[in-house]
This record gives sequence, structure tokens and C-alpha cells, in this order.
Amino acid sequence: MKKYIAEVVGTFILVFIGVGSVVAGGLGGVLPLGQVGIGLCFGLAVTAAAYSIGPVSGAHLNPAVTVGAFLAGRMSVADVIPYIIAQLVGATLASVVLLLAVSGKAGGYDVATLGFGQNGWDPVKGFSMTSAFVIEVVATFVFVTVILGVTHPKHTTILAGLVIGLTLAILHMAFIPVSGNSLNPARAFGPALFAGAGALGQLWLYIVAPLIGGALAGIVSRTGLLSAD
Amino acid sequence: MKKYIAEVVGTFILVFIGVGSVVAGGLGGVLPLGQVGIGLCFGLAVTAAAYSIGPVSGAHLNPAVTVGAFLAGRMSVADVIPYIIAQLVGATLASVVLLLAVSGKAGGYDVATLGFGQNGWDPVKGFSMTSAFVIEVVATFVFVTVILGVTHPKHTTILAGLVIGLTLAILHMAFIPVSGNSLNPARAFGPALFAGAGALGQLWLYIVAPLIGGALAGIVSRTGLLSAD
Amino acid sequence: MKKYIAEVVGTFILVFIGVGSVVAGGLGGVLPLGQVGIGLCFGLAVTAAAYSIGPVSGAHLNPAVTVGAFLAGRMSVADVIPYIIAQLVGATLASVVLLLAVSGKAGGYDVATLGFGQNGWDPVKGFSMTSAFVIEVVATFVFVTVILGVTHPKHTTILAGLVIGLTLAILHMAFIPVSGNSLNPARAFGPALFAGAGALGQLWLYIVAPLIGGALAGIVSRTGLLSAD
Amino acid sequence: MKKYIAEVVGTFILVFIGVGSVVAGGLGGVLPLGQVGIGLCFGLAVTAAAYSIGPVSGAHLNPAVTVGAFLAGRMSVADVIPYIIAQLVGATLASVVLLLAVSGKAGGYDVATLGFGQNGWDPVKGFSMTSAFVIEVVATFVFVTVILGVTHPKHTTILAGLVIGLTLAILHMAFIPVSGNSLNPARAFGPALFAGAGALGQLWLYIVAPLIGGALAGIVSRTGLLSAD
Repeated sequence: MKKYIAEVVGTFILVFIGVGSVVAGGLGGVLPLGQVGIGLCFGLAVTAAAYSIGPVSGAHLNPAVTVGAFLAGRMSVADVIPYIIAQLVGATLASVVLLLAVSGKAGGYDVATLGFGQNGWDPVKGFSMTSAFVIEVVATFVFVTVILGVTHPKHTTILAGLVIGLTLAILHMAFIPVSGNSLNPARAFGPALFAGAGALGQLWLYIVAPLIGGALAGIVSRTGLLSAD
Repeated sequence: MKKYIAEVVGTFILVFIGVGSVVAGGLGGVLPLGQVGIGLCFGLAVTAAAYSIGPVSGAHLNPAVTVGAFLAGRMSVADVIPYIIAQLVGATLASVVLLLAVSGKAGGYDVATLGFGQNGWDPVKGFSMTSAFVIEVVATFVFVTVILGVTHPKHTTILAGLVIGLTLAILHMAFIPVSGNSLNPARAFGPALFAGAGALGQLWLYIVAPLIGGALAGIVSRTGLLSAD
Repeated sequence: MKKYIAEVVGTFILVFIGVGSVVAGGLGGVLPLGQVGIGLCFGLAVTAAAYSIGPVSGAHLNPAVTVGAFLAGRMSVADVIPYIIAQLVGATLASVVLLLAVSGKAGGYDVATLGFGQNGWDPVKGFSMTSAFVIEVVATFVFVTVILGVTHPKHTTILAGLVIGLTLAILHMAFIPVSGNSLNPARAFGPALFAGAGALGQLWLYIVAPLIGGALAGIVSRTGLLSAD
Repeated sequence: MKKYIAEVVGTFILVFIGVGSVVAGGLGGVLPLGQVGIGLCFGLAVTAAAYSIGPVSGAHLNPAVTVGAFLAGRMSVADVIPYIIAQLVGATLASVVLLLAVSGKAGGYDVATLGFGQNGWDPVKGFSMTSAFVIEVVATFVFVTVILGVTHPKHTTILAGLVIGLTLAILHMAFIPVSGNSLNPARAFGPALFAGAGALGQLWLYIVAPLIGGALAGIVSRTGLLSAD
């Protein structure tokens, strides 16, 4: 039970800081927060969770990571669904707290114009659905391959949680303009609940594509091709 | 006695670099320093203190951390008040040095228009008092939960001080526009002494809300729910 | 064979994230991604590879590193050519995936005007060929000297992969305006294949200069002058 | 002798990347490099040197650090002058290479208008000499106190070189607008040789003030007040 609570808390931390960097940090200050700052917020929030609640649950915080870890033989099948539920709960709780916090914005926080940190693609101003799908699959594959590599029992180090967070950070910096760089169905789910019909209509891609990428990474890891003998 | 001196020096480092990044770094250069830079300055100053004077005092640098650590059973009650006094002294000394340094600004440093790196909320241009209160409570809860997790005797690593600093950095990046992201009554206290009546009038929130957040984190940690068996 | 596959995957990660930060990350978002973000993407992608596939192949990801490591006596001659081929394959594969991903840009992705993340110099708007050559030689010398120092059998630490990535990151921040800061023939090769005649015409410099810099670093390392007794 | 060569190479790396970030990185790209990027370049160049040539010489790279380390009882008196000479040589060599590299700038590199990465204060547009002096003394005191703390024989960790670099980085972010944040007579010396009479006329402050700050830190460290029993 403790590990499910840890996943709730860890995913809360990820969404509170990561999505918070978009809905609060992105709005003002001397300079608005760009991709470097938003990327660091998502990535290093994973690092914060990895070293604080990671010893309890492994700090997946992400159904694509859970699926990849399961297919790589790193976790029991009985934990897969509870982990994913815990991640969705944590992401939703953080979204509720953020909605409460930003509702005090001067003039009110208008989700329709400001968004709510949801993931999405925009074929008119940005990139097509196909672009978003390709990036979500490949970037999640890279992310979960790195996770499974740096935590491999044969050669893990205490830096694993830091490297994982920094990897997520740079993937955000590179690919936010294409798809928002979710790579995480739970992170996509929480804000989408409150961001209106457009976000909900695109949510399927942020569930399907990361799960494909994470599953592929788990299968490749299982072959042993990418780990030392 | 050495540990109280260490807290003075550590909090001096935090406020000198962190508030310095606002009152000096934020004013010029090729690009003015935005939330990424200010966040890194506050966060990594904690890291600098953690590895240099941390072995002496634990490098709390923050009454909310001290209260959380006490409630989590990590420090003796006799140290709580001396630690907090040392933190207030360090923050005040750093503010005095900064005031001296920036007073040489061409045309003079006008606190009334430039501020002095104090925390605050602005319901007209920014966010309401309620928003600031929610963020200060929840962000401090997250911050102190991460601290108590990464320094837990059962699973701490030598990376603890780095992870703590990076966590404070990203919380700043995300939430500066809402409340200034203090999370620390001592950091709020020092500059407020020199920043005029407005800052002093809002200081209560930056004492009460972080202490609530830190205390909650200490109580949750004490339950053992978030630490490995 | 596993180590060659690891070099393919590692160089794929480097080019996918690094060049991706230019062709996707550099195009939009709240702020376009500048040298800090692009530098972090290239540098920390090396870190990600170092801790995930590094235990298999050493994560060279770069012919200049391979040549330097060989001349320093760190790898067998039989591996040099296969490593370089694997790096070129990884870089090309990543470039193909990125081309596919950005082709969905609204209005189409015009390589002629937007470039494709290739390296290059521009004597009219930027710096001369000589400037680019000097920087590519000296910066690669510094980079490979740092690599061979931090991984020296007498005094390596688990931080080696992090320090290597951060060093590449800051070299990018400093020198992108001069030469694009390639320091890596494979990273230059992949995008140049798809970036038009101009990029192919300048490719020779990004092969020759980094190899000179890497070779010099290998020779200096071999003397033992820069390692502890 | 090897340790003196190591100081030459290490200080070369620091000035090549750090000053390079100003004279090359600060000039162009999608966004000009601001204080965050310049700070990371100076700071993490120290980290790169710390883990590569640090095992040979300790990677001081800075006369203020050498003086502080000597007064703290960490090095022999016979090494002080050779270390400082080696640092001045390394900084000068790097400045020569950078001058050669940027001389290929389109239209020529005009030191008079663009500067050459020298330190300086400007009482008309920036801050007074007194402000610069205060910052150089106090920031060097903080920097050397952190160095002597994190490398203290009783409680050093393998993270020491990373923490030192990050501390220098944030001090730059905070204080570049006041004094250029040198904290290092060697770093100030190299570029000043080529930057014209104004830089040479202000050089004294960047020799005197950091040496005072470093010496104070060494003396405080020697008391043992800031180290664990």
C-alpha cells in the first residue's frame, strides 16, 4: 500500500511543479518562462521524487514507465494497474490544487485563452497530428530506454534519478513546440480534465503514443541487447 | 555553538546569492535575469551551503525546514529556537551587505521603485492573497517532504544536498509570479526589513504559510508512510 | 556486437535530442530555444547515453572521441572503424526520424530557409572559416581532454558521465555563434545529408578539425602529463 | 612539475570557455547568451577542470583560491607562487587563442566597442567602484568558503567539484551586472591584456578584492569554526 501512496505523492509533485511552471511560471516575471525553465521543472521534479519517494515505489510517476518496467521484467504484474491508478490520482489532485491557486489571478484565470498546461498539437500554427505522434512515440522510447538503462541492476549508480530527470528536461526543451512533449499519460490526463473539450479530444494520442514508446523500450530492454554482459 | 554559527553563515549565503540575483542580477546584463536564473540562484545556494556547512548544522537555512525536521523527529527541541534565530541573523546580515553593495548603483538604488527582493503578492497585477497562501503552503510542503525524504536515514545518498537545491530552484521557476516563492520565513524577513511598509505588511503570510507547509511535511514524514520499510 | 549496437543507439539519442532542439525546439514556444537550451540538449544527451548504454560501449558517440580514446591507449584498434560506422549510422537514423517529424510543420518544413540543424560557418554574417577551424580544433581538444581525464582509470568517479555532458553543454553555449560547435563528425554528418549542398560543402571542416583536436588530446593524455602519479 | 602544467591547462579551460562565452557566445545565435549561460560557462568549466586535472593539482585555477587554500593550511608555501604563475599563463594563453578565433568575425572584431570579456565596473551606467569592491570581496569570500568546506578532509564527497562549479555559476548570475563577477585575478588578467587601457586601469581591483576575500575565507576556515568536529 505504501508504494501506491508514494506514486500518488510523486506524481502530485511532478504535475504540481511541471504543470505549475506552465500555468503560473509561464505567465509573468521579468521574463516569461520558456522551454528551458519548463523543461527543468518537469525533469527535475522527477529527480526530486526519485530520491524522496523512489526508495518506496521506484518513482515511476508515469504509466508509460510502468508498462516499460513491467515488459522489461522489472516489476510484478499485480502492481501495474494500481500504479497507473495512483499516478492518475496524483496528477488529478495536483491539477485541482493548481486550478485553485491560479483562480486568484487578477481578472480571473481564463482557461479558454490561457490554457491549463494541457498537452496538444496545433496543425494550423504548429505541427500535425502525425508529427506529434512520431515525437511522442520516439521520445518516450528514448526516455524509457534511458530509465531502464541507468537503473539496470548490473550497472546502476546513485546518479540514476538525476540522469533520468535531466533526460526528461532536455526532451521537453527539444520537443515542446511539436507535441508539448508529454511522454506521460498521467501528466496529460490531469490538466486535460479541466482544460476543455479540445484537450479531451486530443488526449487519446497522449495515452496511446507514450504507451507504445514505453512498451517498445521495455521489450528492447528485455532482449538484453543494451545492457552489459 | 558551531552549528548555530553554521546556520548564520549558510543563511547568509542563501540570501546573499538568492536575493542578490534579484537586486543585482535582475537589473541588467545582456538579458535581465529571469525566473530560471533567479531559481537557480536560490536553489543552488542551498546546495552550496548543504555541502560546505551542512556537515556542521544540517544546513536548514529556513525556519520551515527546522520546524519540519523537529516534527519529523530529526532534531532536538532545544535547537529549534536557536536555529531560527541564527537563520534570521544570517538573512539580515546578507540583506545589509546587499543594500550596501547596490547603493552604488548609478543614480542611486531606489527601493521604492526597484524593490529589494522582498516576497509579496499583487492582487491587481498578479495573484490574490489566497493564491499566494495556497502556493506557499503547498510548495513548502512539497519542498520539506522532498528534504525529509532524500535525507531519510534509511535511504539517503550523497546527492541529497544537490536534489534539495534543484527542487527549490524549480519551485521558484514555477511559482515566482504567484507569491515570489519564498517557502522560507528567514529569506522573507531579511529583505522585508529594508523594503518598506508594503513588504512588512505582507510578511505575516511568508511566516505563517511556510511554517504550516513545513509542519505538515514533518507530521507526514513522522507517520513513516513515505519511507521504505 | 552489442557495443556497436550501443553506439548506434547512443548516437541516435544524441542527434535526436541535440539536433531536435534546433529543428523543433528552436522554432517556437513561449521563447525560442537559445544557446543555453540547445547546449543543454546536446550535452545532457551525452550524459543520458553515458549512464544507459555507456556500460556497454563507453558511449563515445563521436569519432573524435573514438580516435582520442584509441591514441590514449584506451581501446583496441579493431574497434575504431566499427565504432565510427555505428556512430554515423545512429546519427543518420536520428536525422531521418527528425525529418519525418518536422515535415508535419504547418505550411511544410522548408530546409532551405530553416536549415536542418547542420553545422556551418558564415563569413558574411558570422565568423570566417579560420575562426570555425580554430574553435573546432581547440574546443574538441578541451572536450576530449576532459573526457580522458574524468574517465582516467586512476581517478575516475561515477560523476564522469555528468561532467562530460556538462562540458559539452557549455562549449555549445560559448561557441555556437562561431562554428555551430560540432566537435563531432557524426553529429555533423547526419543532418548534413539532408540540409542541402551548402552543408555538404562545409562538412569537411567538421570531419577534419574535430579529429585533429581529439587526436591531440589522445596524444597528450598518452604522455601521462595530465594524470596523477 | 605536473601540477603546475595541470594548473596551466585547467585555467586555460576556464578562460577559454568562460571568456569565450562572452566574446563568442554573447554575440549572436537565436538569443544572445545572458547571465545564466555565461554563469554556467564559467562555473561548469571549473567543474570540468576539477574532475579532469583536479586529481593532479587540485584545480585551483585562481590565485584567490590558492591564497585561501594556503592560509587554511591545505597547501605548502612553496607551491603558492608557481601555482599563481601557472594560472596567469593559462589565462593568457586562452585569451590569445580566443583573440585569434574571434578576429575572423565578419567586419572584424572591434575590441573597443565589443570588449574582450574583461571585468570592469561602470559608475555611469552600472555600479560604483565601491559596489564592485564590496561584491568582489564578499562573493570571493563566499566562493572560497564553499570550496574549503566542500573539500574539507573531514567531510568531502565526490560531488565537491560539481558543487564548486555550480556555486561559481550562480555567483555570476547574481553579480555580473555589478562587477562582472570575476572573483579571480587570473581570469581578470588574461583578457585585460588585450582589452585596452580602461581594462588595465581597473585591473587592480580584480587583483586586490578577490585576494582579500579568499584570504579571509582561508583564515576563517583555519579556525575550524565551520567544520564538523
